[in-house]
Amino acid sequence: MKVALAQINPTVGDLPYNEKLINNAIDRAKDAGAEVVVFPELAITGYPPKDLLMKPSFIADNLATLDRIAARTNGIEAVVGYAERNHHPVGRSLYNAAAVIRDGRVAQKHYKSLLPTYDVFDESRYFEPARDRNQLVELCHTPVGLSICEDLWNDERLIPRRLYHQNPIKELGAAGAKVMVNCSASPFVAGKQKFRIELFGAQAKDAGTPLIYVNQVGGNDELVFDGCSMVFGSGGELLAQAKAFEEDLLVVDLPPQQLKAGPHKPIGPIPPLLGDLESIYLALVLGLKDYVRKCGFKKIVLGLSGGIDSALVCALAVAAVGKENVTGVAMPSRYSSDHSVADAKALAENLGIAFHIVPIGPAHDCLEQTLQPIFAGRAPDLTEENMQARLRGNILMSFSNKFGSLLLTTGNKSEVAVGYCTLYGDMCGGLAVISDVPKTTVWALSRYINERAGRELIPVNSITKPPSAELRPGQVDQDSLPPYEVLDAILYQLIEEDRSVAEIVAQGFEPATVLRVTKLVDRSEYKRRQMAPGLKVTSRAFGVGRRVPIAQNYQQGLEQSSYT
Amino acid sequence: MKVALAQINPTVGDLPYNEKLINNAIDRAKDAGAEVVVFPELAITGYPPKDLLMKPSFIADNLATLDRIAARTNGIEAVVGYAERNHHPVGRSLYNAAAVIRDGRVAQKHYKSLLPTYDVFDESRYFEPARDRNQLVELCHTPVGLSICEDLWNDERLIPRRLYHQNPIKELGAAGAKVMVNCSASPFVAGKQKFRIELFGAQAKDAGTPLIYVNQVGGNDELVFDGCSMVFGSGGELLAQAKAFEEDLLVVDLPPQQLKAGPHKPIGPIPPLLGDLESIYLALVLGLKDYVRKCGFKKIVLGLSGGIDSALVCALAVAAVGKENVTGVAMPSRYSSDHSVADAKALAENLGIAFHIVPIGPAHDCLEQTLQPIFAGRAPDLTEENMQARLRGNILMSFSNKFGSLLLTTGNKSEVAVGYCTLYGDMCGGLAVISDVPKTTVWALSRYINERAGRELIPVNSITKPPSAELRPGQVDQDSLPPYEVLDAILYQLIEEDRSVAEIVAQGFEPATVLRVTKLVDRSEYKRRQMAPGLKVTSRAFGVGRRVPIAQNYQQGLEQSSYT
Repeated sequence: MKVALAQINPTVGDLPYNEKLINNAIDRAKDAGAEVVVFPELAITGYPPKDLLMKPSFIADNLATLDRIAARTNGIEAVVGYAERNHHPVGRSLYNAAAVIRDGRVAQKHYKSLLPTYDVFDESRYFEPARDRNQLVELCHTPVGLSICEDLWNDERLIPRRLYHQNPIKELGAAGAKVMVNCSASPFVAGKQKFRIELFGAQAKDAGTPLIYVNQVGGNDELVFDGCSMVFGSGGELLAQAKAFEEDLLVVDLPPQQLKAGPHKPIGPIPPLLGDLESIYLALVLGLKDYVRKCGFKKIVLGLSGGIDSALVCALAVAAVGKENVTGVAMPSRYSSDHSVADAKALAENLGIAFHIVPIGPAHDCLEQTLQPIFAGRAPDLTEENMQARLRGNILMSFSNKFGSLLLTTGNKSEVAVGYCTLYGDMCGGLAVISDVPKTTVWALSRYINERAGRELIPVNSITKPPSAELRPGQVDQDSLPPYEVLDAILYQLIEEDRSVAEIVAQGFEPATVLRVTKLVDRSEYKRRQMAPGLKVTSRAFGVGRRVPIAQNYQQGLEQSSYT
Repeated sequence: MKVALAQINPTVGDLPYNEKLINNAIDRAKDAGAEVVVFPELAITGYPPKDLLMKPSFIADNLATLDRIAARTNGIEAVVGYAERNHHPVGRSLYNAAAVIRDGRVAQKHYKSLLPTYDVFDESRYFEPARDRNQLVELCHTPVGLSICEDLWNDERLIPRRLYHQNPIKELGAAGAKVMVNCSASPFVAGKQKFRIELFGAQAKDAGTPLIYVNQVGGNDELVFDGCSMVFGSGGELLAQAKAFEEDLLVVDLPPQQLKAGPHKPIGPIPPLLGDLESIYLALVLGLKDYVRKCGFKKIVLGLSGGIDSALVCALAVAAVGKENVTGVAMPSRYSSDHSVADAKALAENLGIAFHIVPIGPAHDCLEQTLQPIFAGRAPDLTEENMQARLRGNILMSFSNKFGSLLLTTGNKSEVAVGYCTLYGDMCGGLAVISDVPKTTVWALSRYINERAGRELIPVNSITKPPSAELRPGQVDQDSLPPYEVLDAILYQLIEEDRSVAEIVAQGFEPATVLRVTKLVDRSEYKRRQMAPGLKVTSRAFGVGRRVPIAQNYQQGLEQSSYT
C-alpha cells in the first residue's frame, strides 16, 4: 500500500485555488507511484471555513468542486475532505466529511463523529455528528478505518477530561480496520507535536494497525497549522513524518508486513522535534506570511519604537515577506529617549529595510492646542499619553492606506493582557503578530533570532534596556506593572490555566499583585475585543478561543470558595 | 397555584448583585402571597456568562450563592437558574441548571436538554445536555415539567429545520406534568415576541397544560433581553404578560380549573404587541443604558457630524442616561458644509446636551505637513479622507479619557456592512449602538423618535439631506454606494438570509450591483473584526453571531451552482 500524504496549504473559501492544489497533488502522487493520496480535513474549503458554511451556495460550490476533482482522478485513489449535506430532516444540515475517490467518481463518504466545540473550535455550530461511526472504507482493497481530526482525540489516558461518550477509533478497530487514516486540520500550539506523537502512537498501538495522519499546513487568520503529517506503525512507533510549517507530499510504502503488529523500522524521514522557540518562530513567520498573502497584500509597514516588541515583529516580517517588502517608521516625540531612534535605525539597517523618521511633535502640539480650550486647567494624565499613541496610529494607517501595505501591531501577550496599550494607538494594525507571546518569551525569541542568524539582527540594546512606552518623561513599564517574570507567571495561571486568585496566591505570589493583575485583565477586555486577530501559539490565546463578556463584574476575593 | 414571574436584570458575573436581586424578588413575591417564584435561566450568573464558566472558582462561587439563597428561603418555593457541575467523568463538566428551592434547601435540580449552538449562542461549548429529560419536579404539590429556554424551541411546525432529535416538552408532558415552567434568557430580535406567543401557545396547547415562561430583561454586551415573561393557558391562549424592556414581578393566580384544558380568561395584564420601530427603539435604549451602567460609566460622549446617524445615536443616548450625562462634539473640517455644524448644534439644543465645537483644520494641516516629505508628489486619495476621520477619533477618545465618559460609535449596519467607515476613525468607541440598524431603518427610527417626543428632537434637515461623509469636497454617499433602499434590500438577502449572488440577482437586482456589494461586504470583514460590540436587533447582527474568516477568498459568480 503506497500512500501519499498530501500536506497542502489551502486558502479558506478559495475553492478554485484549493481545487488546483488538490489536483496538482493527486498528479504528483500518481507520478510518484502512490496508490492512495490522502488530504487534510475540509481540504476543499480550507479550515476553518466558519460561517461560510452557512451559505448554501458555498456548500453547493464545494460539492461541485469535489465532483470535478473526482471526475479527473483515475489510476489512484484519493481521500479528500469536504462539507457534505445532511439530507435527514432533523439535525444540523451538514457533515464534516471525507470522500473516497476511485475511478473518476466518489466511491464512499465518511463523516466526522467528534465535533470539537471548545477553544477556537465551533464545529457543533455547523455539523451533525456521524451516525455510522463504525463504517469502514476500502483503500487498495484493504478495509480502512477513516476518521477526521478530533475523532483521534478521545483518549482517557492522556486527556484529563473525556468530552465524548464515543470512541470512533475503537469502533473502527472493532469493525476490522487494517489501517487507520485520519484527515486533520490541527492547529499549532507550542509543545503540541510531542503530545500528538504520544497520543496517536497510543491510538495506533491500541488498534493494532498502522495510522496515517494528514494535517493541513499554513496560516488562516489566528490559526497556524504546522503540518507534521505522520505515519505510525501498528506498535505505535513513528515511521515517517512530513515537514513542519511547509507544504509537503510525503510518499511512503506500507508493505503487507507493516500492517502486522510489532515494531517496525522507519519508512520515511523522521525530522527531530523542534524546540519551543524554533517552533514558535516558524509558526509566527508562517502565520504572518500567509495572512499577508491570503489577504492580498505584499507589503508590510510597522512602527519602530526602538523597543523589543516592534523589533521582534520587524524581524519576523522580514523573514515572512522579505526585506524589500517591509518599511519601518520611527515616530519620536518630545518624550523619546536618544536611544529610541538610534535603536530603531540600527534594527532597520541590520535587517536592510526601508526606514523613515516622522517626528510627531508638531502634530502633537497642534492637537494639544486644539483641545486646550476644553482641557484648560486640568492636569495632564493618561489622555495626553494616549493622544501620542493615537497620532502614531494615524500616521501608520496613512502609510498603510497610501502605499497599500498591511500595518502590523506589535503588542505582546503580557501588555495586551493587562491593557498596557492604547486602543486605536499602538493597537492599530491588521494582524497582532505577537499578541500570544508573553514578554519574557519576546526576549527569548529575540535572542533566538540573533543566534539563528549568527549575527545581531535585533539590536542587543533593544533586548537589554528596560522596557518603556515613552509617553511621559522617564516612564518605564515597571512603574505600572510588576516585573515581567512575575507578571507572566501570574498571567499564565490566570489565562491558560483558569486558576482563581486564591489558587495563585497559594503558589506564593503576593496577594495584592495577583488581585491587581486579575482586575487589570478583566478591565481591559474592551480593548481586546477591538484588537486585530492575533496568531495563536499557546493553549489559550486572546481572540476567538477566549470569549469573555465586557459588561461583567465577576470579582474574585482572596478566599477559596468552600465549593472548590 | 399562585406564581410570581421574577423578571430580573442581572449583571453577568456579578454574583453578589444578582444574589441581592434574587433575594429581593423572593421577599416581594412572598409579600404578594405567591407560593412559587420563578427566575430566568442562569439567574445567578446572568446570561450569557460565556467563558467565565470555564473558571472553576466562578462555578464554586455560583454554587455557594445558590446555597445562601436557598438557606434564607422559607414559606415560598423558588426556581432559580444556575450552573451545576457534572460529576460524571465523561462529557462537558457543567449543566445549565435550575434548582427548586423549598424549606431552606435545594430540593430538586433540573438540567437543560437542548443547547443552542448557533448565531450568538455557544452552549455546547460549556454544557452537557440533560440525561433525564422526562424527570418532573414538584411545585405547590403539583407535578411540574421544568425546562430551560431552548427546550421550548423545537417545534417542527414553526421552525424550518429541527436541529434537535429530542423534544423535552413532549417528554415532560408524557411523564404527567400538570404545568410547564420554563426559565429563559431569550434575547430581543425585532418581531420575535409575536413568534414566541405563537410558538409557546402551540407548545402549551400540545401539552394540554398551562405554561409559565420567565425571561431575563436587560442588556448584556451585544444582547438585549426584552423580558415579556408570559403565562399561557392549557388551550394555548396568552393569559398574562410582564412588562417589555423593564424589570417586573408579575404575580398570577393559576386556580385549579385553569389547569384543565379549554379556553380561559386572562389572569393578568396583556400589554399590546409593540410595533417594530418602538421595540427597536426600546431595545437600543435599554441596551445602551445597561452597557454604560454595567461597564461602570455614567457619562457619554459622541461626535456629532450633523448627519442622521450621530443624531439618532445622540437621541438614544439622552433617552438612556439623561441629557445631563451626554456631551456632543462637532469637529468641522475644511470640507464640512455650512449645515453640518448648524444641524449638530440644533440637535444639541433640541436635546439639551453639552456641546463643543473643535475644528480639526489646524491639526489636519499639521499632520499633512508631517507626512508631506513622504507623500510628496502623490495624488490625494482615501488616505487623506481617513486621516481626518482618525483625527476626530483621537479627539473624541481624548474627551473620553479626560472626562471618563464612554465614547459611542455611530455607524449604521449598511455602512458597516460595506466598509463605508474608517477603522480607528469614526469606528472609535466602546459600543456600536446602531451597527445592526440599516440606514433605511435609521431614517424611520429618527422620524419615530420625533413623533414619540411630539416635537423635533432630531433636526428634520438631518433626516432629509443627502447623506455625506464630508471627507472631500462635494462628497455624498451615493457617489460610492447604490441608493440605500437598494443597498439595504441586497444586504438583507446577503447577511440575514445567506442568499447567493445568483439568487439575489434572480429577485431583480442589477447583477453588477449585487456583485459589487457582495465583494464590499467580504472585503471589509477586517474592519468589522475590530469593531466595538454592537447591539443586536435583527436576526443576524455583525459580531459574535456572525463568524466569518478574514483571510479568505470565496468568490461568487453570477451562475447558480448546479448543486443548488
